[in-house]
Amino acid sequence: MSESSSNPRKRAPGRPSGDGGTREAILDAARSLFGERGFEGASLRAIAGEAGVDPAMIRHFFDDKEGLFAATIADRTAIPERMFAAFLGPRDDVGRRLANAYLDVWEDDETGPMVKAMVRTALTSPKSADLVRELIQGKVAESVGEDTDPELPLRIALVGTHLLGLATARYLIGIEPVTRIERDDLVEVIAPVLKRYLTEPLG
Amino acid sequence: MSESSSNPRKRAPGRPSGDGGTREAILDAARSLFGERGFEGASLRAIAGEAGVDPAMIRHFFDDKEGLFAATIADRTAIPERMFAAFLGPRDDVGRRLANAYLDVWEDDETGPMVKAMVRTALTSPKSADLVRELIQGKVAESVGEDTDPELPLRIALVGTHLLGLATARYLIGIEPVTRIERDDLVEVIAPVLKRYLTEPLG
Repeated sequence: MSESSSNPRKRAPGRPSGDGGTREAILDAARSLFGERGFEGASLRAIAGEAGVDPAMIRHFFDDKEGLFAATIADRTAIPERMFAAFLGPRDDVGRRLANAYLDVWEDDETGPMVKAMVRTALTSPKSADLVRELIQGKVAESVGEDTDPELPLRIALVGTHLLGLATARYLIGIEPVTRIERDDLVEVIAPVLKRYLTEPLG
Repeated sequence: MSESSSNPRKRAPGRPSGDGGTREAILDAARSLFGERGFEGASLRAIAGEAGVDPAMIRHFFDDKEGLFAATIADRTAIPERMFAAFLGPRDDVGRRLANAYLDVWEDDETGPMVKAMVRTALTSPKSADLVRELIQGKVAESVGEDTDPELPLRIALVGTHLLGLATARYLIGIEPVTRIERDDLVEVIAPVLKRYLTEPLG
């Protein structure tokens, strides 16, 4: 992209210079390009070009593409916060809140493309999926208190893999019985199971 | 592969000739190559070469690669039969039987590579995933009787996406809490949920 002055995603003029500004510019560019082209399609070179930095700066801040991707999810999308917020509130309703928060993330114009890019790449680049899982698990453990429940990582993994399988079938692959059901009905069907995995004795 | 005489996967000498034999030879070759190279990696040309037939014969019998893949799962693996058998027997124990049958399919040397190839390709080629789902759903409906329960397709989809998400995390991506848990414990944890989705009122 040579005409950077006409590029709407160009670094905002008021952005602070120095390391902080560079990191922010890289994350802005990464969010645009991962969202548009997916994980595989967005090259580090293209992201660096979009951010107006040398590709070496990406490695300096984020190690590799997986690290950049996880940081983009963390810092440039509302995904972790929205999932985290669903855990707060009355336990009785946690399954419904979680199902709604997760389906919202998939349906939202801002977060949907990122979460789709994440799933499409999980199989070819498990590292990025694991980084994101650690991120969400860390945020949840912070609030729920992992010390008090050694099964929390398994509980979150059960809920996470269940939701992921469903959303992939509904929004990405298009498995007919899962696409046909009304969203509110789907929430009612899965909420008791999510609540069970999160709050009741396992096994 | 020019030295077909030294190829251990060559069509067995006693195989009947004619259309039936050609179809069988293609399926044998497809099973080998899909299992070894995955869906993307196994080209129709390579499968045709392995089977000693013209690539046009594959299109004649199976339309396209997705059709060949679904037919290979159906005719050259025990996957549909083993999943189907798990639905038979006391309802009380259907969750445990299904979980065990599914995890067996992933752990088995014969079926594991095929099911992994299936998952890896589901996101890039949803058609093959859907063909396989239809196949299994059809087999289940045959026995359980879809007429008596209009929710059966949704029930199977809920169970299928849940199991798929878990197995992907355990065997393909390696999500830590799901890989660390003993298999018998995992079965105990998910069996009540599978039973619920299959046999209890939804929602």
